[in-house]
Formats: sequence, C-alpha cells, structure tokens
Amino acid sequence: MSASTASLHHLLDWHELDDALWFDRIDAALRHHRDRTWSQKARGKSLGLVFFNPSLRTRTSMELAGVELGAHVTTINVGQGTWGFAWEDGVVMDGTEAEHIREAVGVLSRYYDALGVRVFASGTDYERDRDDVLLKTFAGAASVPVINLESAFYHPCQALGDAATLMTRFDGQVAGKRFVLAWATHPRPLPMAVPNSALLAAARLGMHVTVARPDAYALDPGIMEQARRHAASLGGSVEETNDLDAACEGADVIYAKAWAGPLRYTDPEREASLRTETYRDWRITADRMARTRNGAFMHCLPVRRNVVVDDAVLDGPHAIHLLQAEFRLHAQKAILEYVWQL
Amino acid sequence: MSASTASLHHLLDWHELDDALWFDRIDAALRHHRDRTWSQKARGKSLGLVFFNPSLRTRTSMELAGVELGAHVTTINVGQGTWGFAWEDGVVMDGTEAEHIREAVGVLSRYYDALGVRVFASGTDYERDRDDVLLKTFAGAASVPVINLESAFYHPCQALGDAATLMTRFDGQVAGKRFVLAWATHPRPLPMAVPNSALLAAARLGMHVTVARPDAYALDPGIMEQARRHAASLGGSVEETNDLDAACEGADVIYAKAWAGPLRYTDPEREASLRTETYRDWRITADRMARTRNGAFMHCLPVRRNVVVDDAVLDGPHAIHLLQAEFRLHAQKAILEYVWQL
Amino acid sequence: MSASTASLHHLLDWHELDDALWFDRIDAALRHHRDRTWSQKARGKSLGLVFFNPSLRTRTSMELAGVELGAHVTTINVGQGTWGFAWEDGVVMDGTEAEHIREAVGVLSRYYDALGVRVFASGTDYERDRDDVLLKTFAGAASVPVINLESAFYHPCQALGDAATLMTRFDGQVAGKRFVLAWATHPRPLPMAVPNSALLAAARLGMHVTVARPDAYALDPGIMEQARRHAASLGGSVEETNDLDAACEGADVIYAKAWAGPLRYTDPEREASLRTETYRDWRITADRMARTRNGAFMHCLPVRRNVVVDDAVLDGPHAIHLLQAEFRLHAQKAILEYVWQL
Repeated sequence: MSASTASLHHLLDWHELDDALWFDRIDAALRHHRDRTWSQKARGKSLGLVFFNPSLRTRTSMELAGVELGAHVTTINVGQGTWGFAWEDGVVMDGTEAEHIREAVGVLSRYYDALGVRVFASGTDYERDRDDVLLKTFAGAASVPVINLESAFYHPCQALGDAATLMTRFDGQVAGKRFVLAWATHPRPLPMAVPNSALLAAARLGMHVTVARPDAYALDPGIMEQARRHAASLGGSVEETNDLDAACEGADVIYAKAWAGPLRYTDPEREASLRTETYRDWRITADRMARTRNGAFMHCLPVRRNVVVDDAVLDGPHAIHLLQAEFRLHAQKAILEYVWQL
Repeated sequence: MSASTASLHHLLDWHELDDALWFDRIDAALRHHRDRTWSQKARGKSLGLVFFNPSLRTRTSMELAGVELGAHVTTINVGQGTWGFAWEDGVVMDGTEAEHIREAVGVLSRYYDALGVRVFASGTDYERDRDDVLLKTFAGAASVPVINLESAFYHPCQALGDAATLMTRFDGQVAGKRFVLAWATHPRPLPMAVPNSALLAAARLGMHVTVARPDAYALDPGIMEQARRHAASLGGSVEETNDLDAACEGADVIYAKAWAGPLRYTDPEREASLRTETYRDWRITADRMARTRNGAFMHCLPVRRNVVVDDAVLDGPHAIHLLQAEFRLHAQKAILEYVWQL
Repeated sequence: MSASTASLHHLLDWHELDDALWFDRIDAALRHHRDRTWSQKARGKSLGLVFFNPSLRTRTSMELAGVELGAHVTTINVGQGTWGFAWEDGVVMDGTEAEHIREAVGVLSRYYDALGVRVFASGTDYERDRDDVLLKTFAGAASVPVINLESAFYHPCQALGDAATLMTRFDGQVAGKRFVLAWATHPRPLPMAVPNSALLAAARLGMHVTVARPDAYALDPGIMEQARRHAASLGGSVEETNDLDAACEGADVIYAKAWAGPLRYTDPEREASLRTETYRDWRITADRMARTRNGAFMHCLPVRRNVVVDDAVLDGPHAIHLLQAEFRLHAQKAILEYVWQL
C-alpha cells in the first residue's frame, strides 16, 4: 500500500533515531519476551521480506514476528524463482538483469505494508558499503516503511535483540558493565554490519566497551566516534586493544565476531593471510572465558565451532547465544510495532 | 479437495468465457481497488501456486489476493525443493523426471481448493504453444479449478488487471479511446502471452486498437481475428502498422511490449538480429509520448529501462505501470471469487 | 519455544511407540478424512519444516495439516537461501559449512513449537543409515517435538497415511488381508525408508504380508523381525519370495516400491546393473494385477510410469495412490495432535 513517503517510519539503523525510541523499543522487546502471545495488532497488514543473501534466523524470526502480530509475511529469495535486478540510475538494461530495483520496490510497495531487505556488503567498494548505498536505494524506491535485515554496514534487528538480551542477562543493570567485542579468526571475509551494530548497541547502553582486535582490523572511524558519543551519555566508554587476553580480564560479556575489516578492500590477499594464519589463535577458549568475571558469551550466529569459539564455551553455562537468537524474534516484533506505529 | 470436474470454474483464458463474466469481473476488480480490506470470504480454502518459470508480481500478488480473502496460499517453485515432472502421455519414465504431471496435479488437487500454474512458451513448437498444450494438460489432470498465471499464449490475470487499470484511468469511458500496442526491442526472445492478452483486453473494452510492430512480428492470425470480433461488439476496431511514430499520434494509451513473434520458431537467428539490431530504435521515448494525446504509458513489467522505454517516460507523470501492477492484486481477488464462486 | 526435553513427544518412528497410540492415530486420521474442516486447535503454535531433500507431497500436506489446525507453518529448504550445516560433534568448522546443526536446531526450537525434518539416507554408510544418526542428532539438539518427514530408514508420516488408506479401502476389515510389498526396477538407487515403513504398517494391521523382491534386495533383518513381531499380535504374518507373479496371486493389495537395498552400500555397480537390467521386468503390469483378488494398487509417489507400474494400472479402477497421497494430510493432522497433545 502506498503512502506519503515523508512520514514513513523506516528502520535503516538506530543511530539515525533518538535515544527515547531506542530505549522504548528495548522495553517493548523485553515485554514480548515475557509474554509471547499471538495478537491481532497488525491484522490486515502484510510484510514482504526481500533477501539478496542467505538467512536462517532473520527469515524465520521475522516471519514469526509478523505472524504473531497478526500480519501476513512473504519471503522472497532473489534469484530463486524471481528475476535479477538492476540498481543503477540511468542504466541501459540490455544485460542479464530483467528488472530495475525502482520498479521492483515500487510494485512491492503497492502490495505490502512494509518491506524488509537484506543486502550484504560488496566487500570491494568501501565508500559504497559504508554509505549503505544499496539499502538507501531500496528505501528510496519504497512508498512503505523499509526494515534493514542486515545491510553493508548495519544490522539494527541484531542490535536491538542484543541490547534486550543484555538487559535480561543483567536484570536491567547494564550501564557500567564491561563488554568486550572480540575479533575472531574465520575462513571467510565477513562484513562489518554485526560488529558495528553490537558496538553501537553496547555503547548506547552505557557499557564500558573494549574492541579487541588485531591492528589491521580497525572498525570504521565514523562508527567508533558514534559509539563514543553514545557511550558518553550514560557514563560508558569505548576503547581498543590488540591484546585479547588482557581484554578478557574481568569482562562481563565476551561478544565474539569475525570480520574482515577495511584491509579486505585494499589488500584482500594479505587480509586473508592475517585472518586465517597470523591471527588464527584469536578464538574464544575456556581459558579466556576463565579470565572474565563469570562473563557471558555472546555471538550473533551462525558461528564456526572450534574456529571462532570452542565447544566447551558454547556448550557451557555462560553461553547465551541461543537466548540472543531468541531475542531477534521479540526485537523484531518491537520493530514492526514501530514501523507500523501499532 | 476433489470435486466433479464437469462443473469446475477454471480460468484458462477470458476468450473462452462470455462478455458478462468479463465485465462483471472488471467491476469486481475495481471494487477491490476502492476497498482493500481483508475478508474471510475464502476462509477454509487453500490455493496452490505452481511456478515452472520465475515470477515476482504474480507470485506476491496472487499470494496476497488469496490471503486477503481469508485463504491459505502455498507457492511451489518447480525444481527448487521439488522433483522434476514428465508431461507426455505414455512416456516410459526412465530419465531424469521423477513424477508425471498427472500424479503431481492429481495429488495437489486432493490438498488444495484451486491451483494456479505458470508455464511459459517453449519457443520451439509453435502449434503446441498456440494450443497451450501444457496448460491444458495441467488443467486436464486437475479435479479443482485451475488459474492460468501465464501460459504459452495467454495471461488472463494481466488482462483483467490491465482492463481495470484502463477503466480507472479513463473513469470508465474506455470505449472509443485509442490504444497502441507497441512492439519493442529486447535482448531476449520473449513470448506472446502478454501482447495477446493486452490486445484482447483492449479490444473487448471497445477501444480502437493499433498493433504497431515490424513486419516480421505479426501476432497469431487467430488472436487477431478474436480481437476484431471482441472490438466489433462495442464499436471498437483493430488495425496494424509498421510505423510506430504514426501510431503514437493522438493515442490515449501506449502499451509497450517486446515479443519475439512467430519468426522465433522458424529462424531464431534472423529473429534475434532483427530484434536487437535492425529494430533497436523501437523504444518508447519522450518524443514518441509527446505525439500522443496526453497518453498513458503502460507496461506489464518487468521492463528494461532505456531499452524498451526511456527513464524519462517511466519516471514521468503519464506512466501508470505501477498502478497496473497494483491492479494485478485486485484482479486476482476477482478471479478467485469466480473460480470459487464466492 | 523451549520446554523440558524429557517430556517431548517426538515422532521419529512408530515402532518406538505403543500399539494403543498407533491405532488411536489411525482413528484420528480417519476422522480427519471424514470431516476436513479448519479448526483453531493449534492456534498460537508454529511449525518449522526443514528439508534437506526435495519434497512435493510432504511439504504441501504438512503445511496444510498445520494451517488447517490453526498453526503457522514455515518451510525451509536447506541450501536455498540458508547456510549449510555441520553435523559432527567436535568438528573444527573451517570448511564450507557455516553453522552447526546444534545451533540451527537450538535456534529454531526457540522460534517454533515443533520441527519437522527430512534427511534421506547417505547410501554409503549402512550402519549410520540404519541407526538414523542424522535424524537422532537433529532431535537431540531440539527442545521442541521433532517429526520425521522421512529419514534414512523410516517414513512414519507415510506409514500412518498408508494404514488409514488401507482401513478405508477395506472398511476397517484389514487384518488377515494379503498385502504384497513388490520391489520394482528404477533408474535411481532409492533408499529403504518407505518399504520399511509400509512393511511395518501392514504387519501392525495384522495383514498377511509378502515381501516380493529379488534375492539381492532383502530388507534389514531388524526390520523384518520387527515386522514379524507386529504381525503376530493380530494374527498376521510376514514372508518373503523372489517370485513376483506368484506373490500377486490372490493378493488384496499390491504396494509397489523401488529400493536399492543393502547391496548399494557394498557393490553399487553390481546393484545398479541388477536393478536396471537383470530385474527390469519387476514392474506392475495389468497382467500381474489380474492375478490379484481385485487387488488395490498402492504407491507412495512419486512414481515412474511404465517403469515401476504401467499406465493401465495407474489409470485403472483399482489404483488408490491418490487417496493414499490424500491421507498424508489427514495422517499428519493426527501426528500434530499427538506431538502437541491437542
């Protein structure tokens, strides 16, 4: 259904939205966790999910989030029973793409009351990835609210779920706790949307955040600055280190995540070598968890067992990765309530 | 659910059905456009959609059409998580196909209250395509109503949506307006289902229809004759020309569409050369639109920007392709009401 | 939704469950056949179906079974828009699989109230297939009930549907009837889940069962022994023969099925040669059906026409394969009622 685009409540990322909304939506996610009942709040509404990249959690949790609010949800895997899409303005479409994203999104906006979209980083054009050009192109073509289901640089569904998970873990006393975002080795060059979002979420909760990562794996300066601004308002802090063991000392949370970082864009061969060889010991082990203060282990999933984290940690008592995944559902209900103003 | 097949209300194409039903269903589509609410008219019914070819609009709009009437809808993309199917009578199935269409459709008829099927033209056997052999084989194996979601030769969902779009554009005063079906260049040899259906729809509304196309791109004589019969009853007409610019003069509607035509079946190399080189200027430009009488631009989508039509036209004030796409939803609700006699 | 796993009502196979439940669920399936109405018994519940192998009947009938009880159902085709999964304990996940089944199933258990899973036989490791290692790994990782949608060795949905079909065909007088499980030639080496399940189902109904198969195609000794135990309790019997024509004499049911048997695991080349050449006449023909006592023809589908069975049989009056397929829906409603204790 079309609407005046001026008043659309997109959810592209939380950093564009004010603190009041952020904390209000955390509360809403916590309410959905306490009381998971089906309602009819969104009856008569429909949600179209467009995936340009694979998904298990996001697809299923978003589908259920809609359904449990009474909406209808359709999942569209691009390239599986659909046409391919062209994205650029002014393109002469004489190649393989059969449809321009402008028409595709324009049409879906006539059918659905909101659209979700997952479109990962290119890994080759840093500026376009950082500026989330594809996500913004998609949203710009829409006449209904658009929800970011993980873009090149942000994963706001994950961020909200993680924040609510942290609130649950610490009974609401999150500000001031020590949160370590721990870089990990990985066989593939993963994008930065999740580390960016986890960092911003923890900082905005007023946590003392340490980004532990090898020197070559700095996050974007703009993200770091945003995180510091977030942290400051609640007395938190953001620092960086290349000493994982030291970072673990006394931590309340170890949030493991592999990412390929900016070097992927400029020297992918060296980046791969650093990631899979030089720093292959950047793995969360039981020994490292023992340095924490009964710290919780978190990961957005999917996770590579015994590469990113050892079985002993994942299967141990402090791992809350499944609760974290569950909170995706509750968080996304809170997001749908926002975009539809329910 | 099985039923006596004698009384089945299939929708294979409108030309098999009488005028009263055609105009009644246009009215129903217009009603659904004015009042898009979810009902429970089809509660307890289910619809299975079988796609042998890709789809974006048809899949999503048909799914929502069913859901908004209270039905359950399943989309099946053949070859994605299903077996392949054999179609011929008497075949010894020792090859790659694991199931005969007779069993597949027979089984689905036990589960669903109606089936939709999309099965495109072969592009190699003109007689089989013209006679819609695969669609008819599918329908013949069904014991529930079958809806054609685009077959080799017809696209009745598009036809009804287009007719209702035209009624909306001209406030019901469609008879006597000038409708140009404008052939377009295209990198791929597209089938004739949409041009056939658009032609028949415009003619049946009593429009003065001009098929503007290069000499080698004649539509089927049987279709042309049917269109003339349709047009005659409301004072319309059907003519052909190979002069696109002249056709555009004073037109009320330019309906652009690429098709490969009968030459594809007999001399595909020459056809490709004509389509992509000789006639590459058969494109709807702002200049051509300027020749019309504030004419509307229509296209069934997906459309190749700057190949079939220029950005300036698609993004301009007279393009109604998104409204046309939206009407697919409303039209298909009207079709479901017919096949289920709601 | 998670729950205490001790009290989970999985449906991995019927042979693990007692006779009372088996016969009660047959009755439930027959009730759903007599009265196919949508209820709200499972309103507020959701079902996730995970397919590692293709499906037409199972996917659609299970989806409708859930929907017609008021539940929400999601179908996940692994590898189509999802990550690949690792299955082994202790594996170092530095290869292509991005997620361990333990996390995948753990997460889905947080979202869904039950999970279905289809995971076929490896065809290379007999012991693992016989012990249904993958199915058990999946179920072991779940905190909600798991339904077997066809595993390496069992197909309990098919078994229950077949049992209810037989009850319908013989007006409840099934015990003592003659049931022939007839091996058939086939271009592909098919697994044993269906023959195992059909054999066990017929035996448990007290039928006189004959497994007609070439010498090299014995079913597993454990299955045969279980079938004999089942049959004994209601006065039935289980025997084997390598003479298909003789087996057909006076039979009440011919249940045709191709399977590759244990030889597939030890000498696949010889197995293929036996299956496709030596025994290529193991096909159900009209002549063979004429030897029966107006015997019914059954097959689980998909079936290869004129390879496994002749057109004349499938299109004749004694074929009940479509009724059998329909009963999948009714049986699966009965299974959902069991796993959710509705």
